[in-house]
Amino acid sequence: MAARIGDAAAGRLIGLGMGPGDPELITLKAARLLGHLPVIAHIHAETPETGGEAAPSGAGLARGIAGELIRTDATLIAIAMPMREDRAAGAAAYDAGAARIAGHLAEGHDVGVLCEGDPLTFGSFMYLAARLSGRFRVEVVPGITSMTAAAARLVLPLAARTDSLAIIPATLPEAELARRLDAADGAAFLKIGRHLPKLRRVLAAAGLADHAWYVERATRPEERILKLSMLADDTAPYFSLILVHRRGEATR
Amino acid sequence: MAARIGDAAAGRLIGLGMGPGDPELITLKAARLLGHLPVIAHIHAETPETGGEAAPSGAGLARGIAGELIRTDATLIAIAMPMREDRAAGAAAYDAGAARIAGHLAEGHDVGVLCEGDPLTFGSFMYLAARLSGRFRVEVVPGITSMTAAAARLVLPLAARTDSLAIIPATLPEAELARRLDAADGAAFLKIGRHLPKLRRVLAAAGLADHAWYVERATRPEERILKLSMLADDTAPYFSLILVHRRGEATR
Repeated sequence: MAARIGDAAAGRLIGLGMGPGDPELITLKAARLLGHLPVIAHIHAETPETGGEAAPSGAGLARGIAGELIRTDATLIAIAMPMREDRAAGAAAYDAGAARIAGHLAEGHDVGVLCEGDPLTFGSFMYLAARLSGRFRVEVVPGITSMTAAAARLVLPLAARTDSLAIIPATLPEAELARRLDAADGAAFLKIGRHLPKLRRVLAAAGLADHAWYVERATRPEERILKLSMLADDTAPYFSLILVHRRGEATR
Repeated sequence: MAARIGDAAAGRLIGLGMGPGDPELITLKAARLLGHLPVIAHIHAETPETGGEAAPSGAGLARGIAGELIRTDATLIAIAMPMREDRAAGAAAYDAGAARIAGHLAEGHDVGVLCEGDPLTFGSFMYLAARLSGRFRVEVVPGITSMTAAAARLVLPLAARTDSLAIIPATLPEAELARRLDAADGAAFLKIGRHLPKLRRVLAAAGLADHAWYVERATRPEERILKLSMLADDTAPYFSLILVHRRGEATR
């Protein structure tokens, strides 16, 4: 018989923020749990990384960050996530992954889910949590987002005093991007992919083309950081973002 | 003679994100640096905490988080920050603090600055960095923000798919709060203080009064989390925030 929520014998589902890529940018709490949790799940994207706007995850980035910290006898659950832009196939993959995880939870084992960045900021963890939270306890260990990591590498203030800051997926229509940028002092655009030309137009129209920074794979060995105006590319990989601030200056 | 930027003999100024309060929510990198850095600066606010919208820091929160991790023979620099809403006195305090730090940097010692949350997200570190970056190398170790920590405690998605998320200081005028909220799918309101009644009006006008969560001192022992509609108070302390999402549901 399956354990029910509130059942002390059931395990907990724990989303573990793995941060932006540098293995030192995980929290002490995440590191401790990796050494204790008997079951670790991670999402293995089968998508091509470049331009994959809907890709929920990098190809094993979180698994790579967790590296040697995972208990050597832990059970690993790899959830294969199919090609992008196919909602039904994605839902089926989450269903199957959640079912495998539920088996371990019902047996009383805590299950950690490795999440790039922060589990609740554009993370795939929420799709697993939505499927399991009715039956099991869910907890989250927050993680460093790619946005704060990129700002740190640039030493660029994200917000100060009365600034507001908007985190905006570049997938939105051009007019919506402009409206949301207009309502903020600073912005981080995520999920760039093939939307780079559109973003360039929006930033130029707002007079911010020369204030924008392009950051790819922040804190990872392949990191690229340059002024957006110096970037020749027409598309950008999934793990890239653009930071802009109306007044802020990077001191890097 | 003072060392110059690029001078290998000069020390680095390093902003250390200390996270939201739980000492386990600092990064491995921050923990390692705390054990190595010969000089640690922290800002000691002299402000009353309640309603202190302009207060740059809590009363030694970051110092408390760093706790026993700091090298036992490290030199500690406490920068006393005077009463709120006095810009000139604040600037003088930063000037004096930067001068003390510069002395150590010029002698070739790296100096870490303890920062609640993330150093570049409404942090006071940027005021020190602005005074020192012309002469010394500046680095930042990003930290977990109170916003991601609060979302983690609620298991409330901050953003998914094409959502945008706005981080908005409650200190802005009512019309600006409404405009910025209208241009986002989810929002985190910071610096609540005496602006709580104004925020309640803005959220009610947007039809979001019942979707808002109040989180005070997330992950600290005195943490309070409740639906905003259940909060009787008319003011809120500096370390509080309100999370709202048009569609998201907390699974806590």
